[in-house]
Amino acid sequence: MAGTVGSIQAYLARRPRIPVWRAPGTLLAVDVDRGTELRILVATAPFKEALGARAAAQAIGRGVAAARPAAEVRLVPVADGGEGTLDALVGVAGGRELTVRVSDPLGRPLDAALGDLGGGTMVVELARASGLELLRPDERDPEATSTAGTGEHMRAALDRGATRIVLGVGGSATCDGGMGAARALGVRLLDARGRELEGRGRDLGLVRRVDLDGRHGRLAEATIEIACDVQSPLVGPTGAARVFSSQKGADRDCVERLEAGMRSFAGVLARDCGVAVADLPMAGAAGGAAGGLAAMLGARLVPGAQLVLDAIGFRDRLADVDLCITGEGSLDGQTLVGKAATAVASACSEAGVPCVCLCGRLALEPEEVRAAGFVAAFAINRELRPLAEALACTDAELSAASSSVVALWERGVASARPATLGS
Amino acid sequence: MAGTVGSIQAYLARRPRIPVWRAPGTLLAVDVDRGTELRILVATAPFKEALGARAAAQAIGRGVAAARPAAEVRLVPVADGGEGTLDALVGVAGGRELTVRVSDPLGRPLDAALGDLGGGTMVVELARASGLELLRPDERDPEATSTAGTGEHMRAALDRGATRIVLGVGGSATCDGGMGAARALGVRLLDARGRELEGRGRDLGLVRRVDLDGRHGRLAEATIEIACDVQSPLVGPTGAARVFSSQKGADRDCVERLEAGMRSFAGVLARDCGVAVADLPMAGAAGGAAGGLAAMLGARLVPGAQLVLDAIGFRDRLADVDLCITGEGSLDGQTLVGKAATAVASACSEAGVPCVCLCGRLALEPEEVRAAGFVAAFAINRELRPLAEALACTDAELSAASSSVVALWERGVASARPATLGS
Repeated sequence: MAGTVGSIQAYLARRPRIPVWRAPGTLLAVDVDRGTELRILVATAPFKEALGARAAAQAIGRGVAAARPAAEVRLVPVADGGEGTLDALVGVAGGRELTVRVSDPLGRPLDAALGDLGGGTMVVELARASGLELLRPDERDPEATSTAGTGEHMRAALDRGATRIVLGVGGSATCDGGMGAARALGVRLLDARGRELEGRGRDLGLVRRVDLDGRHGRLAEATIEIACDVQSPLVGPTGAARVFSSQKGADRDCVERLEAGMRSFAGVLARDCGVAVADLPMAGAAGGAAGGLAAMLGARLVPGAQLVLDAIGFRDRLADVDLCITGEGSLDGQTLVGKAATAVASACSEAGVPCVCLCGRLALEPEEVRAAGFVAAFAINRELRPLAEALACTDAELSAASSSVVALWERGVASARPATLGS
Repeated sequence: MAGTVGSIQAYLARRPRIPVWRAPGTLLAVDVDRGTELRILVATAPFKEALGARAAAQAIGRGVAAARPAAEVRLVPVADGGEGTLDALVGVAGGRELTVRVSDPLGRPLDAALGDLGGGTMVVELARASGLELLRPDERDPEATSTAGTGEHMRAALDRGATRIVLGVGGSATCDGGMGAARALGVRLLDARGRELEGRGRDLGLVRRVDLDGRHGRLAEATIEIACDVQSPLVGPTGAARVFSSQKGADRDCVERLEAGMRSFAGVLARDCGVAVADLPMAGAAGGAAGGLAAMLGARLVPGAQLVLDAIGFRDRLADVDLCITGEGSLDGQTLVGKAATAVASACSEAGVPCVCLCGRLALEPEEVRAAGFVAAFAINRELRPLAEALACTDAELSAASSSVVALWERGVASARPATLGS
């Protein structure tokens, strides 16, 4: 047996810089390809109404450290274009935050962050100026709200020299087809009598002409990418009004008025902007702001999770990782497409890195979990609780679940009796 | 490199019967100690009010097979002395079931199973004749019920030649200190006037003398082991009456009458049987039947989970197992001691086999999980649901969770780049 160990050492001696170490209870253990320590990448999305992506990543990181104190843990908050997109891009890709005075969904002044990633790229998160969270429940009314503040945000970016604006949508309080934002950037929306409209949700059906002549001068040199968190088209049964406006305060009649208005507006956009967005995938994001800005500003619609991963160089970060842990508030068959965790899993899958998902709610069968590129997914709730209590326990539950995941993973690694040389 | 592989093969050639195989993507993989296939032992306790131990094991087994179709899965239902003990012993240790006519907790006739393991060992599960589940909610009254049926069960075992009776307690409807069972085996319980008492819970405080003279003739040659599922002593704040009788239908006054009666009865037992059971650990199991029968029949009190594992030769079954998955309805700090899953974990820990626990409810921190001998524990509920709905989903949730556990474990094993020779 000593001869065998000698042979392996001789073999290793021919390959420089390969660490040799002894694992407890083994005769000889050699990591042929890497250093000795487990490297874990924590790339989690925000847990809506519970934890931001960074806090969620920290909770998972704590659990990992509890199970394996020597592991190298890297925290990479990710997002899907919605909530947390600004944090993910500014925090992970590097950058700084500026504060800009803008209007909230009802026109009240508000100071909101704008991200500057350097090199002319600026990040606007629609929810910061036009988000549902900015309104009291009784203020929610998608006919009264507008994305004007988001347009002001974008204008501030252009005024500061942005040549590329990344607009993360999601979490909007609005259903204005992006009229408010376009107006803040110089687009004029005119009714049947040629009077200018304010661009609130209730104006959708009144627009008879879109006048692009006065658009912000710097728009011509700037590209706008909209990071979309949903696949919905602008109109129809899966569109902006019918799927999302009720959660923004619309009753049944209001939903139908918005749908009719959006349909009419899409016709005007097709004629005056030359862009057909009614059935365009993702155009329904943020109450149709994605579709409207695609038509009126020439913005490009991009799946948000993919955009965020690209922007933070996610693939490169997987190079020497042993295990990736991602997290998502809720995973089900409907929401799989476009979720940040799913995009993480798919990048991991391509890179050959195993990816485990921790969820608040998991409405997938194991085969669906695996088909989406995850090795495994676990729901984190250790006890059945009312939702509000469970949300308040998210930090502790995430930490406990990740601890169990890493402990199990590690025992699997350690128990691997097969001797494997090379790859 | 070829030279090294040659050396390993030469090394292996000196150790006969060692299989050599190729894992996908590796140059050479050798399992030094075992065959090539993953061997998983599923040793789960029943999930109370949801699934019996065998059904739970089958659900877990389905999940394992979904993740790793080629795995060898062995199902070993276990129990803690309570519900499922008869099934575990008869099913796993081998044996047959007989049906015996006995009395239910209120004296009504009932056909109930008796386990014959062969070699003179018979298994009685107290809950079959004296269990709470046999009564309608409005019939539950620990002052009116007795363990007479369990005594009849034991008598039937003795009459059939049993030389060893294993009595699994737990799930009882009674708080009679075992008087009913003892009476069925010939013990006489006399009041202040020398009149014989029936041995219901309400008689505890009336007993002035215990007469052992008429005991069943075969008791002298038989050993009785009581598999206890709790640590409670007979009396006091953690005793039979105060902790358990309210769930059997006692109101506050009734609890205190039972406690006083049990205390008085313990005094009589100490004097007439010469055995002090008041503070004996486990004596409070099954409404004090454990303590009473220890005194009146010389029964030995044994932690139930341990007894069951010993009886089914659990340690031997771990010999060539890669991973053990156990399950338990609920795990918390209070209930850790004596739970079947905990006993499984501790046996696994001694044998060096990693053990993962799947729970309906998990009220433990990861460090407590590990201290109890588990590698990891996961709660199985993928969604927050009302308890009754969650119980109805136990089968599907167990299967999904075990699938994820095995998939993760396996990827850990497969990813183990370190080359490990020998152990």
